[in-house]
This record gives sequence, C-alpha cells and structure tokens, in this order.
Amino acid sequence: MITVGVVGATGYAGVELLRLLAGHKGAQVRVVTSRTEAGRRVSELFPWLRGAMELRYSAPDSPELANCDLVFFVTPNGTAMNLAPGLLEMGVRVVDISADFRLRDPGLWRQWYGMEHASPGLLRESVYGLPEQNRDRIRGARLVANPGCYPTAVILALLPLLRTGSMECTGIIADAKSGVSGAGRKPEVDTLFSEVGESFKAYAASGHRHSAEIRQSLEEIAADEVDLTFVPHLVPMVRGIHATVYATLSAPVSPQDVFSTFYGEEPFVDVLPAGSHPETRSVRGTNFCRISVHHPGPRRVVVLAVIDNLIKGAAGQAIQNMNLMFGIPETTGLMSTAVSP
Amino acid sequence: MITVGVVGATGYAGVELLRLLAGHKGAQVRVVTSRTEAGRRVSELFPWLRGAMELRYSAPDSPELANCDLVFFVTPNGTAMNLAPGLLEMGVRVVDISADFRLRDPGLWRQWYGMEHASPGLLRESVYGLPEQNRDRIRGARLVANPGCYPTAVILALLPLLRTGSMECTGIIADAKSGVSGAGRKPEVDTLFSEVGESFKAYAASGHRHSAEIRQSLEEIAADEVDLTFVPHLVPMVRGIHATVYATLSAPVSPQDVFSTFYGEEPFVDVLPAGSHPETRSVRGTNFCRISVHHPGPRRVVVLAVIDNLIKGAAGQAIQNMNLMFGIPETTGLMSTAVSP
Amino acid sequence: MITVGVVGATGYAGVELLRLLAGHKGAQVRVVTSRTEAGRRVSELFPWLRGAMELRYSAPDSPELANCDLVFFVTPNGTAMNLAPGLLEMGVRVVDISADFRLRDPGLWRQWYGMEHASPGLLRESVYGLPEQNRDRIRGARLVANPGCYPTAVILALLPLLRTGSMECTGIIADAKSGVSGAGRKPEVDTLFSEVGESFKAYAASGHRHSAEIRQSLEEIAADEVDLTFVPHLVPMVRGIHATVYATLSAPVSPQDVFSTFYGEEPFVDVLPAGSHPETRSVRGTNFCRISVHHPGPRRVVVLAVIDNLIKGAAGQAIQNMNLMFGIPETTGLMSTAVSP
Amino acid sequence: MITVGVVGATGYAGVELLRLLAGHKGAQVRVVTSRTEAGRRVSELFPWLRGAMELRYSAPDSPELANCDLVFFVTPNGTAMNLAPGLLEMGVRVVDISADFRLRDPGLWRQWYGMEHASPGLLRESVYGLPEQNRDRIRGARLVANPGCYPTAVILALLPLLRTGSMECTGIIADAKSGVSGAGRKPEVDTLFSEVGESFKAYAASGHRHSAEIRQSLEEIAADEVDLTFVPHLVPMVRGIHATVYATLSAPVSPQDVFSTFYGEEPFVDVLPAGSHPETRSVRGTNFCRISVHHPGPRRVVVLAVIDNLIKGAAGQAIQNMNLMFGIPETTGLMSTAVSP
Repeated sequence: MITVGVVGATGYAGVELLRLLAGHKGAQVRVVTSRTEAGRRVSELFPWLRGAMELRYSAPDSPELANCDLVFFVTPNGTAMNLAPGLLEMGVRVVDISADFRLRDPGLWRQWYGMEHASPGLLRESVYGLPEQNRDRIRGARLVANPGCYPTAVILALLPLLRTGSMECTGIIADAKSGVSGAGRKPEVDTLFSEVGESFKAYAASGHRHSAEIRQSLEEIAADEVDLTFVPHLVPMVRGIHATVYATLSAPVSPQDVFSTFYGEEPFVDVLPAGSHPETRSVRGTNFCRISVHHPGPRRVVVLAVIDNLIKGAAGQAIQNMNLMFGIPETTGLMSTAVSP
Repeated sequence: MITVGVVGATGYAGVELLRLLAGHKGAQVRVVTSRTEAGRRVSELFPWLRGAMELRYSAPDSPELANCDLVFFVTPNGTAMNLAPGLLEMGVRVVDISADFRLRDPGLWRQWYGMEHASPGLLRESVYGLPEQNRDRIRGARLVANPGCYPTAVILALLPLLRTGSMECTGIIADAKSGVSGAGRKPEVDTLFSEVGESFKAYAASGHRHSAEIRQSLEEIAADEVDLTFVPHLVPMVRGIHATVYATLSAPVSPQDVFSTFYGEEPFVDVLPAGSHPETRSVRGTNFCRISVHHPGPRRVVVLAVIDNLIKGAAGQAIQNMNLMFGIPETTGLMSTAVSP
Repeated sequence: MITVGVVGATGYAGVELLRLLAGHKGAQVRVVTSRTEAGRRVSELFPWLRGAMELRYSAPDSPELANCDLVFFVTPNGTAMNLAPGLLEMGVRVVDISADFRLRDPGLWRQWYGMEHASPGLLRESVYGLPEQNRDRIRGARLVANPGCYPTAVILALLPLLRTGSMECTGIIADAKSGVSGAGRKPEVDTLFSEVGESFKAYAASGHRHSAEIRQSLEEIAADEVDLTFVPHLVPMVRGIHATVYATLSAPVSPQDVFSTFYGEEPFVDVLPAGSHPETRSVRGTNFCRISVHHPGPRRVVVLAVIDNLIKGAAGQAIQNMNLMFGIPETTGLMSTAVSP
Repeated sequence: MITVGVVGATGYAGVELLRLLAGHKGAQVRVVTSRTEAGRRVSELFPWLRGAMELRYSAPDSPELANCDLVFFVTPNGTAMNLAPGLLEMGVRVVDISADFRLRDPGLWRQWYGMEHASPGLLRESVYGLPEQNRDRIRGARLVANPGCYPTAVILALLPLLRTGSMECTGIIADAKSGVSGAGRKPEVDTLFSEVGESFKAYAASGHRHSAEIRQSLEEIAADEVDLTFVPHLVPMVRGIHATVYATLSAPVSPQDVFSTFYGEEPFVDVLPAGSHPETRSVRGTNFCRISVHHPGPRRVVVLAVIDNLIKGAAGQAIQNMNLMFGIPETTGLMSTAVSP
C-alpha cells in the first residue's frame, strides 16, 4: 500500500485527486494539507464526497508528509519549488501537479511565471510526467513534473507523427479549447457564470505559458527546433479540453495508420476510426485521451484530441505517474467509464 | 452470476443501464436488443463506452432473452406490457423501467397513457420498485415496476413524514425541476439545445402523468387520501432532478430528526446537516438521493431532494432492485462517487 | 429631455440601465459615478457597449449629480440610504434600485439587512415602484424604491387574484428560480461557472430577504395578513426569473378571466392563452412579464410568471418608473423584443 | 417603404429576419409563407414575438410575393434556385439566405450540395452579399446571395490583409466555432440539448461546404489561388461564431494598423484595441463583427473575429443588403446593442 500525502487540495484538480485516490486499491491518503481549511472535513467543502472521503485537512506543516511514500503538490505555482526539496531529501517522492518543475530552463521559467526559480537544480532532475512520451524515465523518478492540461492534449496529438519523423517541424498550429474548470476555483470576475455562459472567446492569443511547455516537449521529441502557434479558448462548459492541431506531413504516410500503430498498446489513448470526431464528453471524468486524424489536403493533417482537463490533464495523469513510479499496474484506479450524456 | 437481458437500450436510461451493468461484478449482460440498431455495436452509438462494452444489439425477438435470469425493459411505454408476460411465464424475472406496471388501476393507466392496458392482471402482482418504501416485497418479486424519476425524488422527500404520521395529507406541493435528459433521446424541436439553452419553463402544469404515480404511492404510505399538486419544470442542464416539496406538519416533531432517523440505515439516501441545500451535481452519475429539510414557519416544512434522473431515477434504481431480487448486497455496482465540478 | 445621473453602475443591473438609457429618446445620462472605475470608459469594462455609450465614470462625489433631474442608485445595499437624502433636499428625484427604501419598517430592514437604517423617515415617504400596483403614487413620487427581482415576479403573479379578493391569504407558496446574474458581478466561488454549470439548487430555503418585501406588498394589496412560503433556486442560465406560485381560490372565478381582465391594459404584462407555459427566454432583454395561469384542482391555482431579472426585475422597471415620474409615455425606451433563440 | 416578402421563415434565421423587419422603419413585411404553418400566427410558433409581429403564415404559392419589391428566401438549400427565377422575371428583387446562389461554379455546387443546379445561369449574375467586400455591386443587384455564417466571419478576418497584399495565400487555417443555432431548428439527435450540452467537438474536419464558399471569395479578393484549411466546431451555446484565423504575413506591416485603417469607415466591423479578445456575447443579437489581431511570431498573425451567426451571419446581413439595394442608409434597422451578460 503506497502511503500518500496531498499538499493543497482545495482546488478542482485537488478534489479530483482525492476522489480518485479514495477509490484506488493500492494507495492510501495519509494526510491532506491546506493553509486555509485546516481542521475542516474535505467533504464539507465538497459535499459530493460525503461517504467517500472522511479525511480532514491538516495544517501545511504536518509532520505526516515526511512519513509518506509520495507527496502530490496541487498548489499554486511557486509553492512546490520551495517545499519539494525538503521532502525529497527525506526520501519522499514527489509528483508536482503545478508548473514548478516542468520547464528545464530557469530563465524560461522566470519569463513565464514571473519569479526566480527556487530550486533550479531540480529542473534538470525532474521528469516530465507524460507516460506516452517518458514512461521509462517516470518509473525511476524521484520528482515528476505532471504536465499541464493543454500540453497533454497537444503533445499527444503530435507525438506519433513527430516520433516517426512524418511531419514538418514548422507551421504547427494548436488551436485549443478548454472548459472553465481549467481556470481554477479562485473567485474572479472572468470566470463567473454570468461572464462565461452563452459566450466563447480566445485568450492569451499573443502567448500563453503552456506554449513554452509544449514547445520544450515537441523539441525533445523531434530533436529539432519547432515552430508552434498555440491559441487557447474558453468554452462555456465545466470540463474538457479539445485540441485541434494542424500539421504538415513530410512523408507519404497514412496518418490514421501512424496513430493506430503508435498508440496500439497505450491503455489511455484511444484512436477513433477514420472519419470520427471525438467529443469532450466521451472522456469526462476519465483518464482517456480520444484522438481522431483527418487528412483534408495532400500534406495537411488535422488531429483532434480530447481529454478531461482535470483527469488526464491533471489528477488522473498524476496517479498514472504514481502507479508507474511504484511499479503497480499503470491503470490501477483509473479505469472508470465516462458518464454521458 | 446473474444473467441479464436488456430490451430496448438505445435511449439515455438504457445506455446508463449498460454502463452500470458493465461494471457490476455479480451480473452479466447476455443480450441487448433493439429494433432499429440490431447488428451494430453499442459503443458505435455511444462512443464513451468504447473499451467498456463490446456487445452488439440483437434483434428484438432474440431467443437469448428467455435464457436470462432477469430482463430489464427500457422501452417506450406500451411495450413491456405486451412482452413481459411471455418472459414471466418462462420463469424470467422482469424489471420494467418504463411506466407499464406502475399504476395499480388499469383505468387510471388508460387515462394517463392513452391505451388500454394489455396485462391488467399483472398490475396487481407487480411491485413498485422503490426500495426505501417496499424493500421486502421487492426481494420476492417476479415483476418490479421501476419508479419514474420525478416520483422517486418526490416520494423520498415525503416518506419519513408520511410514515411517521407527522404531516397533513392535504395541501402538498411538489415543485420539481429536471434536466433535459429526462425527455429522452428522441429528436424533438422542444428539446433541441437552441430551444432549451439559457431558458427555464414549467410544463404540464395542469397535470402530468407522474402525479398519478406519486399520489398512488403517497396514499399507500399514508393509508389515506392525499391532496397533491405536482408541477414539473425543465432546467437547462443535462442531468439531475431537484424536488422542492412543501408540506404541513401535523405533529410537534423536529423534521431534521425524523429524516435522520428514518434514513439512518439507508445506503442511498443521504440526509444533509440542517441548513444545507443539496445540489444536483452532488449526485450526478450516482444512485444517491441527497435530502435536506427546512422549517421556515411554525408548521411549514420544505424538503429539498436531489437525484440523478437516469440513475436513482431509472437505471441505478433498477440495478438496486435486481440486487435485492437476487439476494446480493444491495449496493453492488452502485457505489461510485459523483464527478464534480 | 430628462437629465439623469447614475450612481454605481459597474454591476449587471447598472450596465443594463446604461444600455437602456443610451437608447432612450427622452432621457440623457449626464454623469455615471463609480468609486473603483472613475476615469475609465464604461465601454472598456463592458465592450458590448462600444459605439453605444462613450461616457467615462466620474468619482462618486461628482457635483454633476446635483444638477440632474433624476438620480438612479445601483449601489450595494446601505449606500443609497446615506446619499439619497442630500440629493432629495436639492430637489433631485431618486429611483433606488437597491433595497434601501423598500421596507416600511426600519426594524424589519435591520433584521434582514443587518444594519441600522440611516434614513428611517424616508421609508414612509418612498413609493414602492411596481407600476402595476402603485402607478398613480409613482407619478408624484420624489423617491421610488425599485422592487427586487423576485418580488416583481411573485407580486405580479398574485396581484389580480388578491386585488379581486379571489384567493385565500394563507398557504401561499412561491417557488422561484433565477438565472445567475441575479447574484451580481462580485467574484464569489459560489457563482463561478464551474460551481453553477450543469447543476441546480435551492438557497435560503429557511428564509430570504425578499420574502419580507413580497409579504409587505401582498399584505398592502390584500389589506390582510398573508402567509407565504418563498424558496428561491439558482438555474444554470445567465438571465431570467421564473416564479411558480401556488394559491387557493376563495371564490368561484375563472383565473384565466381574472388575469386577462386585470392585465388587459398593462403595457408590460402579457397574459398567455390558457394552457401555455411561459419561457424565460421569451422576455430576455425586455421589460415584459409573461404569465400563464393553471387550475389543476378544484380550488388550486398555479401561476407561472417570467421576467428578465435585470430588466423588469431591475433596470427596465426603473426606467418605467422614471417615465411615470416625468409624465412621458410609460413605454418609452422599453419596447424591444426578446432575441431568441 | 420597401414592401417585402419572406419565403420559409420557420427556422431560426427566418424568425430573426421577421423580428428585425418588424423594427425596420423603411420596410414592411407584406407576406410570409410556409408550407407547414400556413394559417398560423408567427407569434404562436415564436411567442417572444407576441405584440411585435401579428402576421400569419400564407401558403407558399401566395400571389402577394409577386407584388413585393423584394423577397427574402430563408428556405432549405435547393428551393430558392427553383423559385427565384420566376420572381426575378416579374421584377421582384431577391436576397437568398440559403446557399443556392453563392457558388459561381455549378459543378462545385453539385459536388457540395448533391443536386444539379436548377438555374446555373443566375450563378453568374448573383452578387455575393458581403457588403465589406462587394458593396457597390450589391447596390445594383437584382439577386443577392447572402453569405454563409462561417464565410462571413472568416472572410472578414482575412479581407484587410488579402486586399492589401500583406499575407501569403498558402497555409491559411480557419478554425471556427459555432453555437448550436447554426444547425437549425430541424429535430435531430445530434443537436438535442443532452447531446451537445457540456461537450465540445469538431465536425466535418475532412471538408465542409463552407470551405468552397470561403475559398471562392478569398481567391476573388486575392486574385490568386488560395490554400485554406477550414475546420468547424460546435460550442455548447445557442448563438455566436468565433473564427480563429491563422495567416502568414508577406510584408512588414503592422496588422493592427492594416485592420484599423481598412475597417475605419465600416459601420458594422469594430476593430478592437491591440491585445483584445472579442467575446461572442459582445455581438449577440447584433449585426456587428468584432475583430482583434494578434501577432505572436515574426510572420505569424492570428485574427479573432466574432459575429452573431443568425444576424451578421444571416438575417441582419440580408437586411444590410436590402438597405444597400434600395438606397436607404445601410444601418437602418440594424443598430441595436448586444444584451449582456
């Protein structure tokens, strides 16, 4: 039984992590900390967990964290980089769901996150936790940087063509759409129901943090420079990401075959039959990514990829990483089916 | 292992029944029939079941049905009353999710459903499948009439006060609100996204079929005539029912205590702390009913009850009934937690 | 030309007031004040007003307010009661869209709003601005208390039966449902899209401020004590209120006839044909109230009333009151048609 | 006063056309025809028009059509091409809101619409009714082909850069998102609330009819071949189109300046300040297109354009065309402001 601590689980990814861990046969949550909610029951904040999760929040400095096999950080950016080093030194492994350990280059981190990185040395050690890209390295990692939600969808949409050298590294467009839960549970005018309902918009069209993270992975995969334009949009729904990714083929391959072969053994990537269009609801509440590939012009390929931003894009992938790190079956605790309609 | 057949699973309650059965350790679906979809995979119609449900639809006259221990009907009203008798004669037990066996009085049935009842004799035998009301009778039943979605919520909101004789039988108001999936998967102008989105309305305010079903149960529970006004409304959301039920106390009880005591042992009814307001999302995808009780005036009591119309209001309750009928733990296959937000 | 000032127009009712005033032929906005946004263009905050409203916010102490014929307050509760007296003394008439002048009894005000009233003397002078109830008194008023959104819908649903003495004053149930914009533009977790979307709940079921306001009006109309239970609910839509009101007839009238006759000449109340169910979208963006009446039992009457909470429930009614106060046609600036679907 | 006939106004674009015409000072609707609804009041089908539109539908062969100055077709594709020629011969001018006269090449029409064109000769005469592209030719036209909703948004997003020769004609990506009303009022499973709510998907990713229409316009504007990939998506909202268009600059221009200058005098195109992101709600119910331009890479330009698919994308643009054809001010009847939130 893996003993687990969770730091900062009062947001949407955090509560999903707790829900998934409550149903996980091989792991047990020993402590959940929160600065603001210490002493309250988790299920008081999130009544849908009544009966499933009876833990109370502990204070952030709980000594129990040091007794865990693994600690998940689900904290605002800038927290894990200060707290993870201490835990790692005590032999606790870490999966960080925030952005603190995703970028290798501390200068890039400062540029996008507006702070000096507190543990630049760990940026080289941390493993980017996208199992389809880095499964073997995740198994041995002490510190896993859990990918962002957009990067998960976009990289999965490009991985087969990039790895097989079937596409150009220039002119890549990732037009991504997210449900509002991606913006978190912090009260802001911009994510009020009355601001977002019955409307649609792009944001950060001149540059979004996740573009750096995506580019870093794509360049590692391609072992080449990559030219990418990434534009995120806000959809009037709670959950789900849909990435529409436009690439140019560089070889006379059948994209459908490339994807089917590449992802044939992947437990959480489902390549749909040719001609399909995945719906975000088909992965809601699950760790799946469903993908379809279209080929509307001689060299033009369009990849459609959907994930649940809070599961495969956050809490579910974190558990997938934990499963890998501790040598238990990768799908443990993650095989639920979407509830639709 | 209970072997199960499903007749007519191409609507929303049907597909939820298949999803739940796919995850049920004690039951196995042997055959799923459909008049229109025979030969197609279930997961072709409902892609979120890819990997979880690999069955194909059979023709409606499949001889496999007779080899099942139990057959569920998820058919339009008027179908089960013709087909159930043959199966019952062959020793197959039946849970009917349609309305065919819910009303005891064939005259009342004709009045509300516009057809002569084909098996009036079975109306006396069938057991109304609300476990919280009729658990023992369900255990021994050959034929269970699974309750309607609105009746499930409204009866659960009144059962404790009625059974304990703590409320008047007159002046009961049940103001109920349902997500659009309650209207089914049949294409109709009235349930198009563009008709229902960003709007709210009542319907059938002068009289709805479910009022007869609710009144029949309330009168059985109260052993008295009951005066009830029931008005349903359509909410711009997919799933969930919220019943707001207004009653008048006839005894100096604490409603909160009555509910907590009455439902103390019920596995699927969760009485919230005083002062709470249940949200439909807290039961989405689950078989739970969450209830809170308010007491705004000396004798006035307001009960708020939420269920998932497709689970506790249809497919989940049907499985709960199956579990009872076959003597396996009542909660088998039904203990999932809501996915929120 | 009526010269108008608006105090505090940075919320949803305020911006609707500005939009409506921008299209009003007989009124001109001279000054709009805001504590937080002074100096910014209104259309910078609310880009859909680009080209229609070029004003900038002024500081709250703008001397221009004193030069207006009328000042609207669209401020948080507790503001107008401090500022209105000074303006009234200088001869400026006031329409207060907040709750400050709605209740006649300062004790009741303190009980529900948690503050001592700063101008209890004005509570007797102020006129409750529901034209269908108080048209003549509004014409001559210096100070109009614009009704709350729920009260507008509920009172309009009961006015004809109460005024004609056709209903009992006991056992009245008002089950009301509102879009989320009713909760305002202040950032709160509870009104985030991810909290409210795809869900439905009641709130304040044990007692809501508006119940006092509704009861006060009903008792004035009935000239009798009234027993009312009021429960509000939150609908996952931006705009609209639907009140479902249950009453008991005390006379052998045709409710449909009572409503049609009573509202026959009202410019903004539309009584639908018998058997109808009004949709909130049919009044979205308009000053209309649409009503239908059902009669499901011998003495039971169910009234369905819909309004746009920000228009007839706030900004539109405020302009209707202004039109009456200044003797111009009551419908001026208010005759737009709903945009549907 | 322009006398107007409307053929087939029982869908969403049709009812919006009737609403706009009801408020138009310079035009009067003389006859509205419908095959299925002849004899019924328009406001019976669309209750939000009660009081604003008292016309009844006439039979499709109404002789009144021939007495009109202008007839609008709001019919399924394949109808106007049969009926327009007769009216034109009688001197009636025609604006066709369907797709019948949009493509110049009858072969292309057959390929995308699956029928032989009935009036190929008129394809050369008809003027594509995008005023920002073809204002002068529209003024003199007998037959105007009103643009599709997606083409309106995409062409407006590219027109300034293409006309000024500032962009490449290759590698253009138009990733477009539409509310569900774009799919019309026909009952289909795919547009039920329960299918579309809380989900997002692409459709027709391998090729959509509107791509031919867009390409034809772009090639006329560029006087060159154009390489375009167009992928439409369905957003869980009723109204609005958001086009995200990716192009490559071919000259060292400031895209913001190009747009501001190009659209400086256009009454219905609003170029937002640099750094903005238009929301679909900011144009809901209006004839405006709001545009912003981003420049995230040295040659990469991203244009964001929003319209209301039923107004600027259909009924409103049709009236704009009528105004031009009859020499009255282009903005007549079209200057309403969006109702938000």
